[in-house]
This record gives sequence, C-alpha cells and structure tokens, in this order.
Amino acid sequence: MNLSGCFFLPKQSPFYLFSLSYCYYSAAPSLILRPSVPRSVLRLTTPFLHRPPSHHLNPKRTIKSSSTCLKSTPTTLSATAAAAAASESSSSMAAFSEQARVPPALLLPTPPITKFKIGLCQLAVTPDKERNILHARTAIEEAAEKGAKLVVLPEIWNGPYSNDSFPVYAEDIGAGFDKSPSTAMLSEAARLLKVTIIGGSIAERDGDKLYNTCCVFDTDGNLIAKHRKIHLFDIDIPGKISFKESKTLTAGESPTVVDTEVGRIGIGICYDIRFQELAILYAARGAHLICYPGAFNTTTGPLHWELLQRARATDNQLYVATCSPARDPGAGYQAWGHSTLVGPFGEVLATTEHEEAIIVAEIDYSQIELRRNNLPLEKQRRGDLYQLVDVHRLNSK
Amino acid sequence: MNLSGCFFLPKQSPFYLFSLSYCYYSAAPSLILRPSVPRSVLRLTTPFLHRPPSHHLNPKRTIKSSSTCLKSTPTTLSATAAAAAASESSSSMAAFSEQARVPPALLLPTPPITKFKIGLCQLAVTPDKERNILHARTAIEEAAEKGAKLVVLPEIWNGPYSNDSFPVYAEDIGAGFDKSPSTAMLSEAARLLKVTIIGGSIAERDGDKLYNTCCVFDTDGNLIAKHRKIHLFDIDIPGKISFKESKTLTAGESPTVVDTEVGRIGIGICYDIRFQELAILYAARGAHLICYPGAFNTTTGPLHWELLQRARATDNQLYVATCSPARDPGAGYQAWGHSTLVGPFGEVLATTEHEEAIIVAEIDYSQIELRRNNLPLEKQRRGDLYQLVDVHRLNSK
Repeated sequence: MNLSGCFFLPKQSPFYLFSLSYCYYSAAPSLILRPSVPRSVLRLTTPFLHRPPSHHLNPKRTIKSSSTCLKSTPTTLSATAAAAAASESSSSMAAFSEQARVPPALLLPTPPITKFKIGLCQLAVTPDKERNILHARTAIEEAAEKGAKLVVLPEIWNGPYSNDSFPVYAEDIGAGFDKSPSTAMLSEAARLLKVTIIGGSIAERDGDKLYNTCCVFDTDGNLIAKHRKIHLFDIDIPGKISFKESKTLTAGESPTVVDTEVGRIGIGICYDIRFQELAILYAARGAHLICYPGAFNTTTGPLHWELLQRARATDNQLYVATCSPARDPGAGYQAWGHSTLVGPFGEVLATTEHEEAIIVAEIDYSQIELRRNNLPLEKQRRGDLYQLVDVHRLNSK
Repeated sequence: MNLSGCFFLPKQSPFYLFSLSYCYYSAAPSLILRPSVPRSVLRLTTPFLHRPPSHHLNPKRTIKSSSTCLKSTPTTLSATAAAAAASESSSSMAAFSEQARVPPALLLPTPPITKFKIGLCQLAVTPDKERNILHARTAIEEAAEKGAKLVVLPEIWNGPYSNDSFPVYAEDIGAGFDKSPSTAMLSEAARLLKVTIIGGSIAERDGDKLYNTCCVFDTDGNLIAKHRKIHLFDIDIPGKISFKESKTLTAGESPTVVDTEVGRIGIGICYDIRFQELAILYAARGAHLICYPGAFNTTTGPLHWELLQRARATDNQLYVATCSPARDPGAGYQAWGHSTLVGPFGEVLATTEHEEAIIVAEIDYSQIELRRNNLPLEKQRRGDLYQLVDVHRLNSK
C-alpha cells in the first residue's frame, strides 16, 4: 500500500473530523508546526492499539454468593510459572514508562556542581520600597557570607502583598534596570557576590498588564529567566481568607526552567505549587530543584504549605525550596513564613517559623540519583494508562 | 475547499508522519476507534495554534547592570487599566481549564448518600488462611455494628505478604466463590450486613499469572469491581527495605473506578498511591473517594504514608482512605499500619498506630464541594500548558 500520496476519508471514518482539523490547522496563518509535533501526537495515539484485556472484570460474570467456603483451599500455582509470567509482563510494562511524559522526559542533566549551599531569605517587608530593596540586599550579602551559592527571595518582597499595592510597586522589568530598581539591585548583588539569585517576585508592569514575576540572575548579574506566576491566587474561604489576584494581575504564559551554575531550576510562584502538573512537567524537563517563592497565609499555611512542598519533592524525586516573607502582624495579609528546603525523599532539611530569618542549608544533588535508584518511579510509570503532556515544550520544539 | 474527500500530503509536510500513522492504524485489524478519539487528539493539538507570546524573555534583551538605582521610582499603572487587562486575561484563561484533562473531567456525580461512616479494618494477618478469613469477617461485622456503611480491608489480608506466599495463598477469583473462599466470605458479609466492601487485596491467580487484586462488593454481595495493582512494588533501599513484587506478580491493566451505594470510588493498591497521575485520573472520572489498601513498611511508612494520602486528597480535593495490615513483629515484612481517613482539605480525620484496630469515622461528601468552592483548582488549571491524558478512558470510549 503506497501511503505517501493520497488517501480518502469517508465521512463516517473516525478520522474524518481529524482530517478537517488538519486542514483547519494547515490553513491557519499563525501556525508553526514542526515534524516533531505529529510524532508526539502519534505517541499519544499508540495506546489505542491496545484492546481492553479479555480478563477484565465482566459484569456478566458477577457471581452471587449462595454459600461461603471458609475452608482453606490454596490451589498452588507453581512459583516458577508465576515468576516467568511476571517477568514477561514486567518487561512489557517497562516499555510504557517512557510514554508517561509527552514529550518523553529528558535525562537528568549533570549539574555543574553537586553540593552547595542555598540561602532562603525570609524577609520582613514594609511599605517603604527603598528600605525593602536595601534590606533584601543586606540579606543576600549575609546569605552569601554564610556560603550560599544560590539565594532565594520571597514572593512580593519590594512592597506589601495586596491588590492595591501591586500597581504602585510594579516595575517595568523589560525596560531595563534604570526603570527597575528592584531587579537592578538583584543583578548587582548577584554579580558582586558571585551568587545565583532566584529573585522572589515583584509586581511587573508590561504595557497595561501587571504580572507577579520572578527574575533569575546568574553570577555575572545577567537576567537569565523570568517567570510570571501561571496560576493566580484566587481563593475564597469565608471567614478565613479571601483573595483575588486576578483583580489586578494577569497570569503568565509559560512554565520556566533555567540552567544555572547550581543546576537546572524550575520556578513556580506560591499558588503555582498547588498544581502538581507543573512540578511533574519540571521534573520531566530535567530540573534538579524547584524554587517556589510564596506567601501562603495563616489559614492554608499550616494545612498545606509543608505538605505541598514535601509532596512535590517526593513525587518528583527532586529538591524543593520555598521562600516566604516574614509575617508582619500589622499587615493586611498575614504570611505564613516557614521558608523550607525539602530533599528528594520528602525530608525537611531546613525550615523556620514566621519571623524574619535567613536559612542556609546544603543541597546534595547526588541524593536525587540515590532516591531514584531506591524507588525507580520514572521507570515504573504507566504511559499506557496516563500521560502528562507538556504542551508548552511540545509547542516550542 | 472541499475537505471531505481526498487530500495530498507531501513528504515534507509536518503531517506526513501522521498520515502514515493514520494508515497504519486503519490497517491494524485489532483497532477499534470511535469518533471520540480524533476529537480528543484534536483537543491535544489545539494549543499548537498559540505562538509563544512575544513578551517572553528574550535572552538577547538581557541587560548587564552598570549601576543600581535604589531610589524608589514607582511608575504607577492605573489600577483600572490593570484590572481591565487582568479581567480580560482571566476570562481567556478560564477557557483553558477544561483542556487540562483529556478527555475532559466528568462532573462530580451526586452521591447516593452524603454522610456515612467508613470502617477501616487494620487486621493482624497470620499464616493461617482460614483464621485470617474468619478474623476478617469478625472485623467487618464489628465495623458494621459500629455503623460503617463502607468497610475497607488491608492489602494482602488472607496470608503473609511475601513473594513466597503469594502463589500459595492465591485464589482464582474468576472461577467463582467455590474456588475463592476469601471473596466468598466478603460477598456473604456484604450481603448479610448490607455494607459495601472494598476487600483489601489478596493474591489472585488467573491462568499462569498472579495479581495483587482488590475486589469490591455491593450490599447484595455482588462483585462489582476488581482492581489489579497497576504499579508493582519494586524498591531497593539498601540496608532498609528491598522488595520486588514483579518477581511473582503481574501488573494490572487498568485503573478502577466503581459506583457504589456510598459514592464513586477509585481503587489503588499500596504502591499505586505513589503515582499521582492515577489519583488525578480518578478525580477527573468523578471519584468522591479513593481507597488504597496498602502495606507500607517501617522505612517508607513514617516518611511517606500520611504525606501521600494527604497530598492526593488535597491536590484532588476528594476523600482518601487507606487500610494497612497491623504490624506483626514476627513477620518477614513489617507493615507500617496507620490506616487513615483524609478529607478533601488534606485533613487527617481518623488514624491509628500499628496495632490491630478498627477505625470507624464519618465521611461527609458535602465537604468536597465546599473545598472546591474555596479553592477552585479545577477551573484554574492551565490546559494550555499541561494536560493529563486518561489513556484508558479515551480508549474505552
């Protein structure tokens, strides 16, 4: 059968709709598609080739109990036969694991450094922006003095966390450091102290839009990544906490993973941590560490802050670091604090309470490989049953 | 353009490979495809229409800091303009949330009962199968007497948890209750006590294969679902715990969600809980509750058992119940115990230590709706960035 030329799709064909979609896409002027796309889609369709196995529960086979037989009647299946059957099944399963991530998960890259110290600056934030910037700079210096090669700041550290304040404290990051004193300080601190900085977040102005944005700086002071909070914090727990970031902020358009001198780092901001898919996607992109600057509150903080960090680390077998503002009893928004470093086995390696603090703790990336050898989850996933599609990576190829 | 008939795909077309795959599939004799399939694939491809937004970080725009400006220079963006931009962005985001699950998530069904009691029977298991069956029956009776409408048993409750024992204690569940004393007892107990039973798990023999299988019975004693452990427990933590279920067991082929008189229940067995995708998939299928019979051990138990339950419940905003065997200090495998009920806000509602225990606790499904209103995660997901594909459901349509 020559398939390279022309084929017919009758209207009743299950692919008729798809053929329409093909033509629709091919007609869309803005469409950029590369050959990798159909291959990936193809991978998604592969499991359709599998019929439901015949031994699945058939409701018609449901047996009503007329009598119970409590006598032990072990019908021994030879252990050898079972082992042979199990081994065969095991190898066919292994073939599916790669399909659980679309595109397939990247290999964990060898990090430029295996062991290093991370500094989490849990800063007190005031309405005085200039003071906040100077204060953050001092904290970064202190963390660096204590040996931190990577310094993380809190979410919204240059002004109060409130919808009223976002437009006032926002900076046009894209317009250069002259227009953005907060990122200018971060850049200079990174360069002078030779540290990588995950710059927490500040409100960013871009045209008529505001974002909650995290900037990452390399040790030369270059802005090497910018993450705009993807999932806006819109929650309503009556009598406890109600907040709607979407009143003023616009959500970011892409996940952010960045290669730094201290490994590959995925970035999320606060509420982003609630969406397990983002962490799965970062792990599949080869992240060693996910940093979540975040300001949980006194309602969801005690319930979920540590839980979510430990879950993301354990499920994805990588490091997770969070950095919160310190709690200001006089502020409108009461931050939970508790900036934390979690290891790839879900272990809390360092944490603090809600007061101002600088945590300096060691990261050892060899633990990632160790834990992935202990529990080879990556190889045990069932791509024949579920697949996590990284739409953005698929699209960017 | 008439698209219903014939079209040409040149070799350099990005769809050339796809066209080949179409023809390959259409030629495969075992293939059953319904019109829903291409529509779902179509949904997956929709995001390709989106170009990366132009305001993404452009590395060439990286600005080296020559001087820092610590002077506060807030350039005020009118709050109204920001609000308008945010609102516009917010509505376009909302359109994406449905795409985060493929096929789209089902609506949460109205459960037949909103409030009821669940009983978790943390049983001591011995090498005496007949004793184990009688003992389990007594425990189910006790739970029912205490008002439980749903009773959950532990993983591998009719004999020791070991590769040597699985073939010896295995039962051919499909051959009927005469050949399966363990399930016969469960069926009778369910019928006589008018309770729904999630029958923990036993080793199941089917031909030359062995499975780790959970049977679910309705209040008439009918076997209404059978879940075969999908992810086999193969771990190696040197000096702590090494186990390889795949030496003797074969992995199940499908997720299991079952409608019962106490709501829609997803089933996982022990190690299945480590795979967050399964819980996501159950939530998208409308589960109110996920039950994981499981026997974590004294290494991973204290580290991860409660963490994983709370994470699955919190991330998916549903109930999670686990049931472990009690610890037998003389056994080869030391179970962690700590059978637990977790609510949809990640709150531990009832738990125990490692000794034998029957936990009876209340489930209130109205809490699911409440928590989903508090934190509308379902509507906030970013289907334009990630999608969880339930391959089995897609395939079964």
